[in-house]
Amino acid sequence: MAGKKVLIVYAHQEPKSFNGSLKKVAVDELSQQGCTVTVSDLYAMNFEPRATRKDITGDLSNPEVFSYGVEAYEAYKKNCLTSDITEEQKKVQEADLVIFQDKLALLSLTTGGTAEMYSKAGVSGDVRYFLWPLQHGALHFCGFKILAPQISFAPELSSEEERKAMVASWAQRLKSIWEEEPIRCTPPWYFGE
Amino acid sequence: MAGKKVLIVYAHQEPKSFNGSLKKVAVDELSQQGCTVTVSDLYAMNFEPRATRKDITGDLSNPEVFSYGVEAYEAYKKNCLTSDITEEQKKVQEADLVIFQDKLALLSLTTGGTAEMYSKAGVSGDVRYFLWPLQHGALHFCGFKILAPQISFAPELSSEEERKAMVASWAQRLKSIWEEEPIRCTPPWYFGE
Repeated sequence: MAGKKVLIVYAHQEPKSFNGSLKKVAVDELSQQGCTVTVSDLYAMNFEPRATRKDITGDLSNPEVFSYGVEAYEAYKKNCLTSDITEEQKKVQEADLVIFQDKLALLSLTTGGTAEMYSKAGVSGDVRYFLWPLQHGALHFCGFKILAPQISFAPELSSEEERKAMVASWAQRLKSIWEEEPIRCTPPWYFGE
Repeated sequence: MAGKKVLIVYAHQEPKSFNGSLKKVAVDELSQQGCTVTVSDLYAMNFEPRATRKDITGDLSNPEVFSYGVEAYEAYKKNCLTSDITEEQKKVQEADLVIFQDKLALLSLTTGGTAEMYSKAGVSGDVRYFLWPLQHGALHFCGFKILAPQISFAPELSSEEERKAMVASWAQRLKSIWEEEPIRCTPPWYFGE
């Protein structure tokens, strides 16, 4: 949808990978729709995943006992978080899709295992079980409305043709992504009634 | 139990924290039992959590398209993983508790939310839902037998007395840890019958 801002948080080491293809079609399709698309390519940025004292510039409010939660909150209020964090926060605040507070988030994942393995009776259990901590515990908790996840099962075990079909179905879905209703992000969605 | 080797993988920034206390009583109690206790203090070690090409020394088997899984497996076989990884693997291989392949693992966690919030009807859902990807998807998948998790709920919202009781109950549990039966790490344990 023209004018919408989309942030893609992308975490894969290899641009030529299947994940790289999924990212590329998303950028292409959404740009064609007239969206402004920003990609946070975490590996390319060498993004620091550790939550440490280095995230806070200047003095601590309690240098005796370091509490990351307390200090990060104080630093947030005083604008004393490091720029690599505030830059990402800004992207999230500005975006309409993949975003904080009453906006939309969509997880696009690839798996090692097949769809059967990620079924209720499979060795890995329903794939929705796996999504609970991230989709519900993190994203929904932070105020996101959640679109149904896009799960590309086992690209490594699939044929070239099947992989192309997965990429195509992702591109196809994105054509009407703005009309989708969020899921009801409650336990029954994850664990059944 | 005298002679047992225990590895504690510890991830908290502040030694004076509640988590620090839980780690300390575990080291004390298990050492007193005659166990050899090793602590991997991830923050103090500045452990690198990113999975990148830098984990592999020497040439890649396919420098054209980087696949972390393929390259790490090849490097493992040729002894070409970096020493920070192989040192941790060695600790895991040697340990009897918190360990690979038919050994025991135990998650000791603290939460922000209360036990009520982590109940089936609570906002965070049953705490076991949250454990599924890590306890079942990662540890059990790698061959661990899983002991019941030790969950210290909401130390920040508790009184000093309550916190002391939580630390004491952890120390108490460790006295007979070697007699515990692993949980049945299957979906019913996590999601009910």
